[in-house]
Amino acid sequence: MLRVSNKGRAIPESPIRKLVPYAEAAKKRGTEIFYLNIGQPDIKTPKVALDAVRNIDMEVLEYSTSNGSEQYRDKLVAYYKKHRINITNEQILVTTGGSEALYFTIASITDPQDEIIIPEPFYANYTSFSIAAGVKVVPINTSMEDGFALPKVNEFEALITPRTRAILICNPGNPTGTLYSKQEIRELKKLVVKYNLFLIADEVYREFVYTDEGHYSIMEEKGMDMNAIMIDSTSKRYSMCGARIGCVISKNPELISTVMKMAQSRLCPPTIAQIAAEAALDTPQSYFDEVKEEYIGRRNVIITELTKIEGVHVVKPNGAFYCLADLPVKNAEDFARWMLESYDNNGQTVMVAPASGFYSTPNIAQNQIRIAYVLEKEKLIRAVEILKDGLIKYSNSIALNQ
Amino acid sequence: MLRVSNKGRAIPESPIRKLVPYAEAAKKRGTEIFYLNIGQPDIKTPKVALDAVRNIDMEVLEYSTSNGSEQYRDKLVAYYKKHRINITNEQILVTTGGSEALYFTIASITDPQDEIIIPEPFYANYTSFSIAAGVKVVPINTSMEDGFALPKVNEFEALITPRTRAILICNPGNPTGTLYSKQEIRELKKLVVKYNLFLIADEVYREFVYTDEGHYSIMEEKGMDMNAIMIDSTSKRYSMCGARIGCVISKNPELISTVMKMAQSRLCPPTIAQIAAEAALDTPQSYFDEVKEEYIGRRNVIITELTKIEGVHVVKPNGAFYCLADLPVKNAEDFARWMLESYDNNGQTVMVAPASGFYSTPNIAQNQIRIAYVLEKEKLIRAVEILKDGLIKYSNSIALNQ
Ligand SMILES: Cc1ncc(COP(=O)(O)O)c(C=O)c1O
Ligand SMILES: Cc1ncc(COP(=O)(O)O)c(C=O)c1O
Repeated sequence: MLRVSNKGRAIPESPIRKLVPYAEAAKKRGTEIFYLNIGQPDIKTPKVALDAVRNIDMEVLEYSTSNGSEQYRDKLVAYYKKHRINITNEQILVTTGGSEALYFTIASITDPQDEIIIPEPFYANYTSFSIAAGVKVVPINTSMEDGFALPKVNEFEALITPRTRAILICNPGNPTGTLYSKQEIRELKKLVVKYNLFLIADEVYREFVYTDEGHYSIMEEKGMDMNAIMIDSTSKRYSMCGARIGCVISKNPELISTVMKMAQSRLCPPTIAQIAAEAALDTPQSYFDEVKEEYIGRRNVIITELTKIEGVHVVKPNGAFYCLADLPVKNAEDFARWMLESYDNNGQTVMVAPASGFYSTPNIAQNQIRIAYVLEKEKLIRAVEILKDGLIKYSNSIALNQ
Repeated sequence: MLRVSNKGRAIPESPIRKLVPYAEAAKKRGTEIFYLNIGQPDIKTPKVALDAVRNIDMEVLEYSTSNGSEQYRDKLVAYYKKHRINITNEQILVTTGGSEALYFTIASITDPQDEIIIPEPFYANYTSFSIAAGVKVVPINTSMEDGFALPKVNEFEALITPRTRAILICNPGNPTGTLYSKQEIRELKKLVVKYNLFLIADEVYREFVYTDEGHYSIMEEKGMDMNAIMIDSTSKRYSMCGARIGCVISKNPELISTVMKMAQSRLCPPTIAQIAAEAALDTPQSYFDEVKEEYIGRRNVIITELTKIEGVHVVKPNGAFYCLADLPVKNAEDFARWMLESYDNNGQTVMVAPASGFYSTPNIAQNQIRIAYVLEKEKLIRAVEILKDGLIKYSNSIALNQ
């Protein structure tokens, strides 16, 4: 029989995607939806980036080199230097989004059946890329009670096997918003050096940090040049998700040359988008200051408002633009669907992401949702108001149906 | 030990890439190189496509949907209809180049260790994508003596095993330039239907066809809707290789939904490039007529000139913009390197691709090169003149060194 979907590479449908048809039906009924479920910011893309696209001067839209245009990589070197990261342009490989950077990295450092340890909850596509590469994700649990702090070294050690190839962290984290300290990075360094593992740090939210200490990149930490692999992206930084430009950064030449082979097979990252990304490096600091202020404002609003709801628990995030919230429900996925299917408040409702999809361990955090605070403050206030009302109506409807 | 390059996914370095450092060194010495080694056409990108980019009107460069913008897919439906291909927009999944379409397709229809039969010589990255997916390429040889014609059905049958999942063809072919007839497609249909295999047709050169009969797509052939998967790309058609827009097309909903899961994990294809690709669909027919005339002229020139060289054998290609040539040398890779390393003719030389990299069977076609006729006619004439002189000098130098 013609068999398509396959045992070996069955990427699970994310619980976020599962809700999309319900959202579409709600929209068709005329319900207005506040989308708190996805990481697509409403922030404007820097004008310099879009202008560079509008001013492109070429007759033939050619392939770039497989590791990205040299000119762009040169300018990236200067950008990272400003962030205390000293690398050369050969230690950067430009990719089609952080997504491709993640997949190439995972595939380059593993054989099928190898293992990667990832603190959960984590960005759900880490699972997809691992499945595509035949790699087993070994989750290490972090919890709301501990503020999603990095687990202790001995907890990691307990999970290391001969097949473990890497530890993958997201800093600051999606979906937790957690920011790791210099001390935590240092602990991880000792671990990966001791066990000869790679430390992959997904730092695509590196500019979205709301503490005085700021962000500490794994590339700043000395003594693990061969182990450290950083994943970066222009998607969130410049609110240019549609550009699809990211990169892999490592001082390990063998890693870069292995990733390069995968990069060559797909020829090159998008050329026009590289021009946009290069121009985006000239974005004035004032842009970032404003964006950061905006997100701090939004975070404060969302946390304050959520905390007011009885039975809701949150951890105040220090980075990125997500937070996790425990709701006074048994099954957050069911609640999220109900909000789209059976509820509206003056013609409005809210779409949230059930958090279970961010956990690899089955059947935990069933009452948790992720909120992306990517809307204006007034909208966030209204959205939480709807959420609060929805929670009451939902528990009434549950009680009725029992 | 920190181990990067891995047994399971060791993508071989293509013989074309291996020559790049020699080309760079030659350039540094001031030698002018005629590049006949790569499929980067010098043809101008249609103005409508570049103008659409220059006129983009957006404030936030957002993710598109994972299967590509609906508007673009709608217009693609109309384009394919003009080419006698009747599909709906849900049977199209827009990808980041034909490259990604190929990888997603191979990964979606296989488990690791499964097999795909491919007539060789073939586009070298088929190997890379298969290796990335853990899939075994089973080559079926075609040869210059037979004009690289499709092997007979019984030869395919002899290679089919319980692990065979698909036959992959390239039509018209890179590197052969061979165009398959309606009859040949029909034979393949019977085979894939009988054995429940997929038939993947890479048709990225579909507009580059130089016969009166024209191109016959697998999507035109009735009776294999569940088996047929077409790969397409805007790269060559509109000379916009740097856009990175291609697609997977299939009437098999299970295939499309499986590819969709991979597509969702990488979020979306590049947004600006989709705008360019959509606009490119309005390219006037006169553009294609001119391009085709130009390539026919180039093909005729290159074949005529090559045929004049003693000991050189070629097959006149009916499509794409490549041809294979047997040279009177033992090792074409050595010759190609020598042309870059040790030769120049009035400060000029030629870079060609050793054809062995397009074969999966080891140690065959060692005397063959692939020529991409992507330069103007005058340049092609001069390039072949240099090649001819180079062949003489090379065999002298070989004789001297023996
Ligand atoms: C943690 C994390 N990493 C990587 C990505 C991939 O983003 P992109 O491929 O747009 O760079 C995302 C997108 O949401 C993300 O949240
Ligand atoms: C036969 C064939 N298929 C697919 C591709 C991939 O092209 P792209 O990813 O630019 O669409 C190429 C590029 O040269 C090719 O020759």
